[in-house]
Formats: sequence, structure tokens, C-alpha cells
Amino acid sequence: AQPAKLLVLPGDGIGPEVMHEVGRVITWLEKNRGLAFEITEDLVGGASLAEYGEPIRNEVIEKARAADAVLFGSVGDPRWGHVGFEKRPEVAILKLRQELELFANLRPAKVFDALVDASTLKPDVVRGLDIMIVRETVGGIYFGDPRGIETLPDGTRRGINTEVYTTPEIERVARVAFEMARKRSNHVCSVEKCNVMESGLLWKEVVTDLHAREFSDVKLTHMLADNCAMQLVRNPRQFDVIVTGNLFGDILSDLASMLTGSLGMLPSATLGAVRADGKCAALYEPIHGSAPDIAGQGIANPIAQILSFAMLLRYSLNLQDEAKMVEEAVSRVLESGLRTADIMSEGMARVGTSVMGEAIVREL
Amino acid sequence: AQPAKLLVLPGDGIGPEVMHEVGRVITWLEKNRGLAFEITEDLVGGASLAEYGEPIRNEVIEKARAADAVLFGSVGDPRWGHVGFEKRPEVAILKLRQELELFANLRPAKVFDALVDASTLKPDVVRGLDIMIVRETVGGIYFGDPRGIETLPDGTRRGINTEVYTTPEIERVARVAFEMARKRSNHVCSVEKCNVMESGLLWKEVVTDLHAREFSDVKLTHMLADNCAMQLVRNPRQFDVIVTGNLFGDILSDLASMLTGSLGMLPSATLGAVRADGKCAALYEPIHGSAPDIAGQGIANPIAQILSFAMLLRYSLNLQDEAKMVEEAVSRVLESGLRTADIMSEGMARVGTSVMGEAIVREL
Ligand SMILES: CC(C)[C@H](C(=O)O)[C@@H](O)C(=O)O
Ligand SMILES: CC(C)[C@H](C(=O)O)[C@@H](O)C(=O)O
Repeated sequence: AQPAKLLVLPGDGIGPEVMHEVGRVITWLEKNRGLAFEITEDLVGGASLAEYGEPIRNEVIEKARAADAVLFGSVGDPRWGHVGFEKRPEVAILKLRQELELFANLRPAKVFDALVDASTLKPDVVRGLDIMIVRETVGGIYFGDPRGIETLPDGTRRGINTEVYTTPEIERVARVAFEMARKRSNHVCSVEKCNVMESGLLWKEVVTDLHAREFSDVKLTHMLADNCAMQLVRNPRQFDVIVTGNLFGDILSDLASMLTGSLGMLPSATLGAVRADGKCAALYEPIHGSAPDIAGQGIANPIAQILSFAMLLRYSLNLQDEAKMVEEAVSRVLESGLRTADIMSEGMARVGTSVMGEAIVREL
Repeated sequence: AQPAKLLVLPGDGIGPEVMHEVGRVITWLEKNRGLAFEITEDLVGGASLAEYGEPIRNEVIEKARAADAVLFGSVGDPRWGHVGFEKRPEVAILKLRQELELFANLRPAKVFDALVDASTLKPDVVRGLDIMIVRETVGGIYFGDPRGIETLPDGTRRGINTEVYTTPEIERVARVAFEMARKRSNHVCSVEKCNVMESGLLWKEVVTDLHAREFSDVKLTHMLADNCAMQLVRNPRQFDVIVTGNLFGDILSDLASMLTGSLGMLPSATLGAVRADGKCAALYEPIHGSAPDIAGQGIANPIAQILSFAMLLRYSLNLQDEAKMVEEAVSRVLESGLRTADIMSEGMARVGTSVMGEAIVREL
């Protein structure tokens, strides 16, 4: 078999440290499962700004296009707070999403039994929680035109952004959500603000039509974004799959993550359209940020990055068994009582990034 | 003294029932505190649609303009789900906000000691919580043009909404937030998505400038909306006053409310600009909706409506003592163990709407 071509982009802050632990998992899979990976690494975010004066080079985008999958760390560095809107580190991830048309961000929010107490919510409310948020990521107000800041004749300034969604953009992400639901608990909740936004009204109509045409076996409900934020706090286990636009998805998926109390545990995948070669572009990244405050200290939790790699095995390489092996190794390490600082609790053994990485490989 | 002119708009669902209990409080204040109120009542929302074919008449808007304050119940009725975007019951509140330029929505999220267990969050996380969200309510994506749904030549449909904020719109709401903070814990957190939206970039700049010019005694911090949603779950007591735009405010204020676990307890105020007569237009409403599922059963919690009236006493009529009396009567009733169904817990005495209203008047 051809080796799997991965582009690895560790990025800023704790990105390189936690990515290093994925390296160990890859080495183990090569040695013990006969897999072959062809890995290219490059710079993004603040690291790229420092070296090349831009948050991501076109060359890197081309490499991403050529790869079977991109494994991303995290971007964001307070030292680049002054570079202006066009050059901020976040542009790296926004450009990758847009150029590769990575339109469906899958954000699981899952509570591990061993970590149910890490949540600020009562254990009874979050035990067993398992939500999948499917967030649209190349449309909506993030990318709509017109946008910018203009100065009116009287000196007043106006900031403008435009939310735009078209029927095909809504359909393709809703399709991902319905297909996801079929493999889970068969319920999709579509979220918008159709009571104040026409783009939300169209969203609701398109999802409803697609459901009637192709997915009537799946349960479909609708919810306003403000109510969804409330329901996620009130009774999060009512949800299975949530599908929503870029901006609501940004907020609601972060909210859902925090219900688990352990951001350092949560991976994500962003999938694109199926390409000519039958594969689809895909990017995998932990949901935590670059955490500059703890970078370089060897204390960051590598699990979200490792579980992002497990998602890569599952969705891009169709290696279901290996994905499961990695996920189960993580669970066992947690059950054995090892904890990085972010998920530490009484009676557990506190370890650093590399001890955690080694322990996971040992469990494999 | 002139009687205070109030326009009372009970609206739909449980609105009329809970408003009825405010009537008792008003009667008590007239008899025992020598206050005089001149009260006009009218229809809004589904109730107005049924009678007049529109969610709010211009006549009602004129009455609102002439009043010292508007006491609003709630709108929304599933029987009017089919009337179309222009006529939906929500238009009543949106029009009142816009026509009276009610630009600053004050949304307290406060945990009553007696109800700390009502929250889905751990008591240690929410005990003593007291946040004030100041949400801009006449700008942003709710009202920006262009908006609508258009059909392209190839049949694709596009939904469009526009987020617009100008410097004076941002300044005036930020000013309310800073002034609020001075009477509280002196900390404002300004929330936007300046990393992806230029309107958020302008927001941040204007708030920062105003702070430097007029409010440098107040602590100012900035936070991205997605992070704010997380922080509200992780450690909500880090906040004092949060100031944000219309859409983020809609979501984050509902999220913050739910942290208290008792929506039936939470009032809100929406304030306008100072008018020629030195007063400012203002509307007071509970944050809960019309709750059609329990309407007409006499079991709704009237406390949020009564506390909205207390806010009216404080902000529109400058009756600080009477506002405090009402608020303290509510606290005492809760401490005495009376509970409506929505806040019921073991060992407490379950009562209906009118018994709760009577008990509060008795405590006065
Ligand atoms: C980095 C930033 C632009 C991004 C977003 O807002 O989409 C992040 O918050 C995310 O959710 O992936
Ligand atoms: C009724 C509706 C239009 C309204 C809004 O979205 O602003 C409501 O959710 C609110 O928060 O007051």
C-alpha cells in the first residue's frame, strides 16, 4: 500500500509539544501495525510570521492540498497581537478552511467516565454526555462581503460584516450531519435565529427540505441559537448531533466543549468535499488553543492532539481498528489514574506531556 | 406629584397571568406608599395578531412613547407559527426596541441563595453569582441592510443579513456598561469576535478609546465571544459587567441566565436615550418567554415579572426604596420556603401563581 501522506503543522504555543507525542503513536503504528506514513512538517501561525512574515505561505496550502490529511496543532501568539487583521496568526486556519473548502467542522463533546468530576456541571447532568456539533466553516459571516471598516463623511466609522448562506452550502453541511446521526443516535437538531435573520430562515427551510427528501428516517428538530445555549446548560444530554452555521457553531461548540470540563481532551475534524481522486480534504486539530501561558514547560495535555490523530485514522484513512486502539489506550491511561495538570484531581498521579504520551504508547 | 404613566403589555401565554400579580404589588404601593400610577393596557404579539391582524399597532408604539415606562410580559404563540416573517409575534418587541431606540438591554444573572441548588452547575461555582450583561439591542445583524432571501439566475437561493455597528452606537451602549460597573464591582468585559469580524474590531477599538477618555477608573478587559461562552461555564464569577452586541448578547445573556437555573426569577430592562423631557424611554420584561405549554394553568412563576417591575421603580421612577422593598419581599418569600413548580425542590411548599403573588404582597 501507498504510505499515507500527512502534512503536520504544529503551529504556536503548546502545539509543537503535544504534536511531538503524536509522533510516538505514529512510530508505534508503523512498527506494530505495518502502516506507512509519509510526513511533511511546516510552519503556520506566529511561527510562520516569525520566519516568513505571513501566517501561512501558499506553498503550505499547496502541500495541504496534496496531502491525504492535515494534522494541525494550534495557532495564536500574543507577540503577534499588533500585526493587523490580514496577518494575524488565525489567518492560517481560516485560509486552510477556505482554500481546501473544509466546510464541515466536527466537534465532539464527550465526557469520559473517569473525568466526570472535571465538569463545573453536576455529574448527574453530564455523565455519559456525547454530542457531535457539525459546524459550517467556509461560509456565513466569517467570509461574507461586503466587510470592513469605513469612515463616513461626518467622521463616524462603520464596521460591517455580511452573513451569507446559499442553498448548496447549507445542504452539504446538513448532509454530513444527517449521515453522522445515522451512525449515532439518529437525531439532528438544526440551530439558527430564524426569528430575526432571513439567512436563518433559509437555513431552516433547506435543512427541512433535505430531511424530507433524503433523511426522513432521522429525527429532525429545530432550535433558536439562544435557546440552544440555554438547553446545553440545562440538559445537554437531549442532543445527539447539532448542525449550525459558522458563527453560532463557533460559540456553541466551545460552550459544549466546556461542559466536559476538560478541553485538553477534545479533538476535532474539519472535512471538505469529495475530490476527483475519491478522497476528501480533511484537517484534524485539538479544540484547545496554543495556551502560550504554559508553552515550553512540558505540562500540556497531549490527549486532544492524539485523539485528533485518531479521528484522522478513522475519517481520512478508514483505519477504524487503529482509531479505536488509540482511543481505548487513552481511556485506559485515564483509568489508571494518570493526569496532566489541566485534568488533575485528588488522588490521581500528576504527570507531564511526555510521560502521558509514553503511557498511551505503552497501553497500545 | 404627577402619577407615573405606565403602559402595560401582557402579551401572550403566561404573560397575562404573571402580569396580574404585578397589579397586586401596584395596588399595595398606591395604598401604603402614597404612589400614584396611571396605567394603560394594550395587546401585543399573538394577542394583537388575533384582534388586529398585526403583532403591534402604531397606536401602541405611540402610547409607549408617551409613557414613563413600558411593562412588557412576553410574546410568542405557536398558533402564529405560519404568519410569515413580517407578522410574527416577535416583531412586537423588535419594533418597540427600534422605534423607541431602546438600545441597552440590561440582563442581570443573579443566583438567589435560597435557589443555589436549582442550577445545573455545582453550587460552589455559582453561589453568589451576580453578572450584569449589557446587550446592544437596536443595531447589529438584527436590523442591518441588505437582508432577505434572493433567488439567483441558476435557481440557487441566498439568505443575507448584515452586521453593522457605528462608533456612536458602540459608544452609547459602552457608556451604559461603564456607568453600571461603577455602581457594582467596577469591571467591564467587552465581548466581540475581532479575530474574524471587522465590526468586532471596531467595537473593541471604540470601547477601548471611550475607556481611556472617560472611564479609566473602571477595569476593562476584552474577550472573544466563543471564549466568553466557555468562561461563563468554567468560572462565571470572574465577570461583573459584560458589554456586547445584539447577537452575541442574545446568546450569552440567555446562557448566563441558565447558569442560575431559575429563569422564572430573572427580570430585564431595556433603556433608551435621554429624551427632551430629561427622562429616557424604557421597557421592562421578564427574560422567560410566553411558555404556551403551561399558560392558563395558574402555575407560572410571577417573580420575574414582579422583579421587572422593581427594576422599573428603580431605573425609570428613581424609587430606590420601593424597588428594594419589592426585591426584599421576594427574597423573604423564597426563604420562607414557597416555590412555584419551576423552582420547586424537596421539602419546599409548592404554590401557584396567585398564592406566590399574594405572599409577596404580604411580605411588603
Ligand atoms: C481561530 C479562530 C479564527 C477560530 C474561529 O473563530 O473559527 C476558532 O475560534 C475556532 O473555533 O476554530
Ligand atoms: C423575541 C426575540 C426576537 C428576542 C431576540 O432574539 O432578541 C429574544 O430572544 C430576546 O432575547 O429578547
